[in-house]
Amino acid sequence: MTKTPRTGGAHPVEPKADKASVRRHNLSLVLRTVHEAGETTRASVAAHVGLTRAAVSSLVEQLLDQGFLVESGKTFSGQAGRPGTVLKAADTGPAGIGVEINVDYVSVCVVDLAGTDRVRVTEPLDNRAAAAEVLGRAARIAASVLGRAAERDLRAAGVRLALPGLVSAGTVHQAPNLGWNRVEADRLFAAALTALRPGRSELPVASDNEANVAALAELWFGALGDVRSFLHLTGEIGVGGAIVVNGELLRGAHGFAGEIGHMAVDANGPLCRCGSRGCLEQYAGQSALLRAAGLEEGVTGPGGVEELARRVEAGEPRAVAAVEEAGRMLGYALSGAVNLLDPEVVVLGGIYPRLMPRLGPAVDAELARRVVSGLWTLSANRLRAASTSTDAARGAAAVVIRQVLTDPLAYAS
Amino acid sequence: MTKTPRTGGAHPVEPKADKASVRRHNLSLVLRTVHEAGETTRASVAAHVGLTRAAVSSLVEQLLDQGFLVESGKTFSGQAGRPGTVLKAADTGPAGIGVEINVDYVSVCVVDLAGTDRVRVTEPLDNRAAAAEVLGRAARIAASVLGRAAERDLRAAGVRLALPGLVSAGTVHQAPNLGWNRVEADRLFAAALTALRPGRSELPVASDNEANVAALAELWFGALGDVRSFLHLTGEIGVGGAIVVNGELLRGAHGFAGEIGHMAVDANGPLCRCGSRGCLEQYAGQSALLRAAGLEEGVTGPGGVEELARRVEAGEPRAVAAVEEAGRMLGYALSGAVNLLDPEVVVLGGIYPRLMPRLGPAVDAELARRVVSGLWTLSANRLRAASTSTDAARGAAAVVIRQVLTDPLAYAS
Repeated sequence: MTKTPRTGGAHPVEPKADKASVRRHNLSLVLRTVHEAGETTRASVAAHVGLTRAAVSSLVEQLLDQGFLVESGKTFSGQAGRPGTVLKAADTGPAGIGVEINVDYVSVCVVDLAGTDRVRVTEPLDNRAAAAEVLGRAARIAASVLGRAAERDLRAAGVRLALPGLVSAGTVHQAPNLGWNRVEADRLFAAALTALRPGRSELPVASDNEANVAALAELWFGALGDVRSFLHLTGEIGVGGAIVVNGELLRGAHGFAGEIGHMAVDANGPLCRCGSRGCLEQYAGQSALLRAAGLEEGVTGPGGVEELARRVEAGEPRAVAAVEEAGRMLGYALSGAVNLLDPEVVVLGGIYPRLMPRLGPAVDAELARRVVSGLWTLSANRLRAASTSTDAARGAAAVVIRQVLTDPLAYAS
Repeated sequence: MTKTPRTGGAHPVEPKADKASVRRHNLSLVLRTVHEAGETTRASVAAHVGLTRAAVSSLVEQLLDQGFLVESGKTFSGQAGRPGTVLKAADTGPAGIGVEINVDYVSVCVVDLAGTDRVRVTEPLDNRAAAAEVLGRAARIAASVLGRAAERDLRAAGVRLALPGLVSAGTVHQAPNLGWNRVEADRLFAAALTALRPGRSELPVASDNEANVAALAELWFGALGDVRSFLHLTGEIGVGGAIVVNGELLRGAHGFAGEIGHMAVDANGPLCRCGSRGCLEQYAGQSALLRAAGLEEGVTGPGGVEELARRVEAGEPRAVAAVEEAGRMLGYALSGAVNLLDPEVVVLGGIYPRLMPRLGPAVDAELARRVVSGLWTLSANRLRAASTSTDAARGAAAVVIRQVLTDPLAYAS
């Protein structure tokens, strides 16, 4: 009866930060403020961050010198006081490189400090092959993209891989749809990329689950408005999922949270590559959808989904039935997830936005039937299609940019 | 292409806190430190919180004067320096009152500042009745418990109700197993309690979902060790659920997260009171379990479960089959939740701990079969029975204590 509860934890006073680390922190604060404002002035930054005008000017000078900020010719007099020169994040200098390796394509994206998507290459490829081979191929695409970025005076601050599997500490623990187990993706990719760039220093490489970074892309670049908590699905060969709570990914104890594609929707359904039975992706993944619609075996990628969408628009019964059945199964699995997580909205990405006219109502109806609060109503607009400007490669690249914004000095040239 | 990402948010410098609010904060810091240590000295507190010995002594004097702390006669010389008088949280003064109103019982618990469970009354009652009547009955039990607390020099700092339903801002939005919809539980309970205590000031009353506070009780008083992220189920007439991430409840957009009892385990299963079909609680809730085991209709509460447990221990085939089938269904629903959330452990509370010898292996086997990472292995000890010293009433009472610890001055007599 006498055990004491751990009802909070003490908040020990922090040791006094030394002057250099205070400046380092404030450089980040100013850079992030400009980045988020898009265009702003020294006076606005000072008002926003609560530092003196003089302190902000000194920090801005350093960020200009080091190429993180630029001044545009414009002046801006929206604030009280003298008009100020407009500051914005540089469109040259450090850039984030996102490399999505999915089952049937590789997509590489370069994002600059302003958050703008600057170079993009997507290649259809069958990645159900040995990891070293697939990662080597992706590194070749990335190397060519790095060359194009250099022509724009962008230099890579780091590479983030986005992979369709369980990723933790640089290792793909399991990626059923690639057939990978325990693959040291970071190390293999970094080695391949370094070999392709003789005389250059090795770039930092890190990996993430593709659905996680796709959700971050939606959060940062999408059309969610004030929504900060949502469940994000990406329909590909597999069905990826990610949970965002108050603007942060919920990663789970091992980094494996969000695996909605392996929620079972039929206890006795067909065997899944993951070892379980009746997983959602066997009903609502791209392969399952195309097969159910009677589209020829082996048609995958954007072509297959485009053909399916055309047939649905033409009212072809088998195509319509396949999409509606996938929608019911998605809605069924999502109802469990919504009962568990109570997200503000659910976002469907990957192949799903293209199919929304038929898919969305089927998903919505099943959710309305099964969400316990009665708050899932068709009028509530809680089911959304992902924005067309968001995807895993862009999210991965933006994670690198976030790291730069958090500590610019670590990325000064 | 040019939308800027919201990749962080500025951290404006806080306005300088005035002296009174700094002292108020530090009083809380010292009180929490003593509370968590159980027994400690001024010197240890000073070392822990990073304030001077003199400052801590002044804060401790005020907390002693106001009855939040007491000195024991003992001295303690575990630290360097002079031996110090032992300080601990008072076992008199402000107390938290937890009132769990479940389908077939009411349980009231008083917790003191040290976190100790001091008074406890549990009454079997059928609460499937009008809300005003049920809340009035619960208020009568609470009033009598308050009298017993007063005999121990404990005075209620507040009351927290724990209810089996969707609770938000003082209102039970929906409690299918009580048959309640849109019940202003806080207001009704507070009015009933005030009427029973003429001449006393009205106590603050707030409501929570019972599974949420049961999970907090497990976090604060259970045997989870370092585990800070878990999924907690409470088996009652319904099946409640709560998600704890890094020591905090995940509440969801409307406060309705955790409703694992209404995850569907069979798309075409029987209609549930919530309006959906085939919800988990129709297979693994107390009523479903007793019915499947052939226990006579209407046997509910601890008696029914005790009888079921006895029959299982005696090897009665129908009882064994009922518990194992409930375990499979629990494991099936939990596999979806674990794939989604990747918790460190899953805790089964309510009626389940009594049934664990047969129930646990069935749940575990289903999880091992279906959790995608392959990290759910029978040897991993990720499935736990809730501690016998934790329940929703104690958790609810401890939430009130947490409020007192956070700002003791607000609760000074």
